[in-house]
Amino acid sequence: MRAIYFDQTLQFRADAPDPTPPPGEALIRTRLAGICNTDLEIMRGYFGFTGILGHEFVGEVVQAETAPELAGKRVVGEINAYCGQCPTCRRGDPTHCPHRTTLGIDRRHGTMADYFTLPVHLLYPVPDAVPDEWAVFTEPLAAACEITDRLHIRPTDRVIVLGDGKLGLLIAQVLQLTGCDLLVVGRHPQKLAVLERRGIRTQLAGDPIEPGADVVVEATGSAEGFAAARGLVRPRGTLVLKSTFHGDVRLNLSMVVVDEVTLVGSRCGPFPAALRLLEQKLVDVEPLIHAVYPLDDGLAAFEQAAAPGVLKVLLTTAS
Amino acid sequence: MRAIYFDQTLQFRADAPDPTPPPGEALIRTRLAGICNTDLEIMRGYFGFTGILGHEFVGEVVQAETAPELAGKRVVGEINAYCGQCPTCRRGDPTHCPHRTTLGIDRRHGTMADYFTLPVHLLYPVPDAVPDEWAVFTEPLAAACEITDRLHIRPTDRVIVLGDGKLGLLIAQVLQLTGCDLLVVGRHPQKLAVLERRGIRTQLAGDPIEPGADVVVEATGSAEGFAAARGLVRPRGTLVLKSTFHGDVRLNLSMVVVDEVTLVGSRCGPFPAALRLLEQKLVDVEPLIHAVYPLDDGLAAFEQAAAPGVLKVLLTTAS
Repeated sequence: MRAIYFDQTLQFRADAPDPTPPPGEALIRTRLAGICNTDLEIMRGYFGFTGILGHEFVGEVVQAETAPELAGKRVVGEINAYCGQCPTCRRGDPTHCPHRTTLGIDRRHGTMADYFTLPVHLLYPVPDAVPDEWAVFTEPLAAACEITDRLHIRPTDRVIVLGDGKLGLLIAQVLQLTGCDLLVVGRHPQKLAVLERRGIRTQLAGDPIEPGADVVVEATGSAEGFAAARGLVRPRGTLVLKSTFHGDVRLNLSMVVVDEVTLVGSRCGPFPAALRLLEQKLVDVEPLIHAVYPLDDGLAAFEQAAAPGVLKVLLTTAS
Repeated sequence: MRAIYFDQTLQFRADAPDPTPPPGEALIRTRLAGICNTDLEIMRGYFGFTGILGHEFVGEVVQAETAPELAGKRVVGEINAYCGQCPTCRRGDPTHCPHRTTLGIDRRHGTMADYFTLPVHLLYPVPDAVPDEWAVFTEPLAAACEITDRLHIRPTDRVIVLGDGKLGLLIAQVLQLTGCDLLVVGRHPQKLAVLERRGIRTQLAGDPIEPGADVVVEATGSAEGFAAARGLVRPRGTLVLKSTFHGDVRLNLSMVVVDEVTLVGSRCGPFPAALRLLEQKLVDVEPLIHAVYPLDDGLAAFEQAAAPGVLKVLLTTAS
């Protein structure tokens, strides 16, 4: 089968071996796969991953011995393959299972191929009303929903989102639904325009921002973004960290104590909620699609995805 | 009157002017004042304070025109003199009022003197069952209670407190009351013994600690303590920051996101709760007293308080 493989360098392989599903796993044919910033970070050595890339997907179940009702179904799926039995899983934190492998990120081949496998309990059928081009956003949209899952955002809160990348645009749309007083700050007028069309207030980075927000979401992926976010949150406010990037930031611990600020890290989120938002058309992911490439042109697609200002690049297995 | 004054250097002044209470403030005669680590930090230039030091006290109201019922009463008092009218105060966060002055810390003379003044609404009468030597701990004990006020600590949580200083010992006693599985890590066997006698499990820093705690409280006052605390908290766990010290720490933001850790800064806390714990003998502050010095020997008292391994040094105005 065809696959986008990473092993020090990014490679297109026409003759990768077809996967055989282990017990409890489904064989899935990829329909669409999305290129995420995490994929670009992996290419810089993040996580030390070797294998087939890709964790965003919508696919079709080819075979699922332990869940035959899934056969032929269009599905999306969670990316953390957890054990389900350790104290972390039993506590209700399976996405943090210390024994987990992660689709296309950590010791598990990913979705940028004709086929891949995933445990059946991680799969969610896609409602008919949700086309492939929306469903492929379920994983990053779930990551946006993780903010409201971990943190009570009130309709009376003043919230600032820093960053107008793919994740920032999804986060903004999810937070808008809380009724909060929302401002999104970014560097790209054409990306901010996506939000403006939905009635979300935006402004360009560099223009003065009124500090004292109840909640600030850092989604810029930069150390400068963290420093800016820290300066915008009010005493006893909350700073939500969504960016994963290499390297440390400097933090004045004393001011975190004096201002009693809360920092919350947030990663993977709830798939059923994300599917509901897509099905009920409460968020709009289509303007986030920059281009769809055939899987055969995967290397060109990655080059495009890494270019400044580019939103979501998708790969299709259809020819 | 007599006063311990800081102006680049620490001074004992025998002829400081008696204060005149502004409208709405009480004139208070100090009975006991405590030396806090914050006082020692101020002497290193922290906060850039000039004036009479001291924010921990138990005193006697000499005069209180707007609250005559307080006259003659033994009182303790909150240290943040807030405006009560700005959005921050009205939101219920008066200890963060941007217009506040802070007793002996920021633009307000402190308690290490024969007399000082404080707004009457900051004062709490001390129950008869609480002697002066306990009451003087109300402020730091309230700061310990701020942890359970800001964070739900469950009886099923595994909690680690790093640091066996004065604040660490108070925090440990407050957290013990939640029924949680508590471990305190410190560098001083004789301080840890105070907790061991109360049935709290302790161990010396340097010995291996089982990681994966639900909550870790950083109360060492050092950058190393912060790094250690970060390594001990479980995914989705909470790291409580209690130390105020100069300088930045380095933080791997990515791992905070991946592990979805929450960092919570915590400072001044609820006085009524602290007074209840003292009155009901649910915490024991007496073993924390290292020495009581006459106010006249204030400079020697500060020298003593700054020595390694020393717990609380008190100043008395009695001769």
